[in-house]
Amino acid sequence: MLNIYYHPMSFPSLGPVFTAEAIGASYNKTVVDLLNQEQKSPEYLAISPYGKVPALTDGDFKMAESAAIMRYMARREKSDIYPSDIKAQAEIDQWMDYVNHHIRSAVGRVQFNRVVAPMMGVRADETSIKVGLKFLENNLPVLEARLSDAAFLCGDALTLADLALVAALEPVKMAKIDMTPYPTLTAWLTARRGETFYTNIHTHFGAEMGQ
Amino acid sequence: MLNIYYHPMSFPSLGPVFTAEAIGASYNKTVVDLLNQEQKSPEYLAISPYGKVPALTDGDFKMAESAAIMRYMARREKSDIYPSDIKAQAEIDQWMDYVNHHIRSAVGRVQFNRVVAPMMGVRADETSIKVGLKFLENNLPVLEARLSDAAFLCGDALTLADLALVAALEPVKMAKIDMTPYPTLTAWLTARRGETFYTNIHTHFGAEMGQ
Repeated sequence: MLNIYYHPMSFPSLGPVFTAEAIGASYNKTVVDLLNQEQKSPEYLAISPYGKVPALTDGDFKMAESAAIMRYMARREKSDIYPSDIKAQAEIDQWMDYVNHHIRSAVGRVQFNRVVAPMMGVRADETSIKVGLKFLENNLPVLEARLSDAAFLCGDALTLADLALVAALEPVKMAKIDMTPYPTLTAWLTARRGETFYTNIHTHFGAEMGQ
Repeated sequence: MLNIYYHPMSFPSLGPVFTAEAIGASYNKTVVDLLNQEQKSPEYLAISPYGKVPALTDGDFKMAESAAIMRYMARREKSDIYPSDIKAQAEIDQWMDYVNHHIRSAVGRVQFNRVVAPMMGVRADETSIKVGLKFLENNLPVLEARLSDAAFLCGDALTLADLALVAALEPVKMAKIDMTPYPTLTAWLTARRGETFYTNIHTHFGAEMGQ
């Protein structure tokens, strides 16, 4: 049985959970109590050697890293969201990495400094927020153009790249990131949030935390 | 024929080049003139839709993103550096992503602000340097421990994860990142830099630029 270790406020955690739902895998979810540093406990370090969420166990097999877990689950179930053709895989890999390097990390900078830092009593780094917003200003138009040309990032069907994008954009409202310059992307995101892979998990990001 | 579009000072570019060498693929290299913004030219944007290096063409097929290109080339050649077993792939994917998210991005912060910013006449962001160094202080011990237990990141044979790590650590000397707390990792890196996948490319990072 697949067991996903995650935290509802860790948006990289959501990619594996969305994937498990999208492919109809039978799985369990275990919340790792990040607020109490459970991710650094010996028990958890035996699963994820560097103490981060998400992680996955599949019987005795253990692994970490959001995109790697998503690929593993899709391959295990031989799902069409990650087809076996190497060029199709290459295109999906490209857009997953693009989303994680250029979108998720930038959203993370803004989210951390505007939402998490105040919760932790840490001073927000305004330069990091500016860099994050600049990254998004440079990169969100790429996605706006891409989704104006096709229904999904890699053509006419949902793939792992789309699930990675939905996860990466989860905190935009909470982090007060202005999405109005990107109407196609915004409509696309709203549509994805109406699909069962999303509605089976929550109504909106932060719902489990009462945010 | 594979054609890798790259720049010698872009260390994410080096992963695909090392991979092509390691698997013995027949390939061409094309330098993209980043200093003259060639990456934003219409010709290059037709290859990489968001104007970044590296990119790859394989006949009519075009793609971008360092790790995605590395996987594609290894799959195309059915190379043992990315075996077909899904658990082996998952472990390699995990360590590639770990390296790219936690090491490459942190080295990039320090390298950009200590080396590239002065070349561009941009003011260095000292906070970003501090964050990068803190990330490395938190994450390099994970690699030091990992490589104390095994010859390579994923066991007893070289994989794509190792090539990603060599690429990610290319600028440590230039960026004046202290590696003395990590003797096993440093010795490992020196050994990898003696292998033909490396020596066929250059003697050291920055050599092509006279640095």
